Amino acid sequence: MIRIKFQQSLDELKERLLVMAGMVEQAIQRASEAYSTRDENLCDLVRQSEPAINRMELEIDQLALDLLAMEQPMAIDLRFILAVIHINVDLERMGDQAASIAARVLDLRKMANVDLPVDIPRLALLAAAMVRKALQAFIEGDAEMAQSVLLLDDQVDEMNREAFHALGNLIKNKPEQAPQALSALIIARNLERIGDHATNIAEDVIFWVRGADVRHHTLSDVHP
Amino acid sequence: MIRIKFQQSLDELKERLLVMAGMVEQAIQRASEAYSTRDENLCDLVRQSEPAINRMELEIDQLALDLLAMEQPMAIDLRFILAVIHINVDLERMGDQAASIAARVLDLRKMANVDLPVDIPRLALLAAAMVRKALQAFIEGDAEMAQSVLLLDDQVDEMNREAFHALGNLIKNKPEQAPQALSALIIARNLERIGDHATNIAEDVIFWVRGADVRHHTLSDVHP
Repeated sequence: MIRIKFQQSLDELKERLLVMAGMVEQAIQRASEAYSTRDENLCDLVRQSEPAINRMELEIDQLALDLLAMEQPMAIDLRFILAVIHINVDLERMGDQAASIAARVLDLRKMANVDLPVDIPRLALLAAAMVRKALQAFIEGDAEMAQSVLLLDDQVDEMNREAFHALGNLIKNKPEQAPQALSALIIARNLERIGDHATNIAEDVIFWVRGADVRHHTLSDVHP
Repeated sequence: MIRIKFQQSLDELKERLLVMAGMVEQAIQRASEAYSTRDENLCDLVRQSEPAINRMELEIDQLALDLLAMEQPMAIDLRFILAVIHINVDLERMGDQAASIAARVLDLRKMANVDLPVDIPRLALLAAAMVRKALQAFIEGDAEMAQSVLLLDDQVDEMNREAFHALGNLIKNKPEQAPQALSALIIARNLERIGDHATNIAEDVIFWVRGADVRHHTLSDVHP
């Protein structure tokens, strides 16, 4: 009887985390669209979603604590709860990154529109795909899928390195465009950090499912 | 008898986290000194400490899991363990930031030395003070002290905003110094993020001690 109640609470915890994930995904998607369209309303929507995401983080932590207090969970349940606690933090910080992007877009709206040598929408698409895949892996408890997220991260990092060089050169050659270039640079880094958080989530999924900790290991350590 | 063993394990968990904190504090301090002296060996030391910090993170998580499996902890012990799990993540990410600073200093070594309008050593001192104070609050279970960290964070953010403007202007006026200015800009942001992590730790201490969650609240919410 107690066991059934415990299982229901685990399901509720998972469901709650997925609601939070949905809010964060929407914020990322809107922030990216706001960059493309320079839409002020979208920026406001992203910034307004932050308090709700923050509240959700606290609720999920409380739920996890309640679960831990309920009975002595089995090892795999403990790993699941630890994974949720970690993922919860990563999701909340992704929300912060999305809000930071929105704030930069509001800055950009005040500047002249110039051609920047960085494909922010593509970078955002990649980062969003990482988030989607990491969450899908979490939903299905699929460690293989989680590992594919780690490969996408290399692409995001590479794109970011290129953007950094290209924007640095632009600043040198056209210093009058420095404000725009700096804003784009920071948005690119925001997106890179969203990718990093997705990677963290993927690693937490692998830890939960396999019981093996892959954090801080390269892919070749996992699949020799 | 079991209770005594549990208490010992809690103490061990705390001790382990403080060892990790010491490694991270050293990395931050060395990264800052490396910036001032452009010392290559210091940069290498910081970068080499990262794997050890990462291993420590995994050990601490495992210890926390073992504790949660041991018996049904009381509410305050649960909050303590949750705080440790959170602080553990923040410490590890601070280590990443220190390593990132060291990498930037290695870049700077290849560039001409120029006068930059940002006092990185002072910013580093402030960030390190936040970390020290947050950890002291953790050691002593002192929520008042933890709250003082939140005030320091405003100073760090303000210094960073100033640095951002000053470096942006430098880039516009002396584009040939853009590479140095961009590196300093990123180091300033690395330090700001270290301050953010210290803030997170302080909030976790308050949550553990008071049972009240102050994350995402302003100081005036806590002390009306």
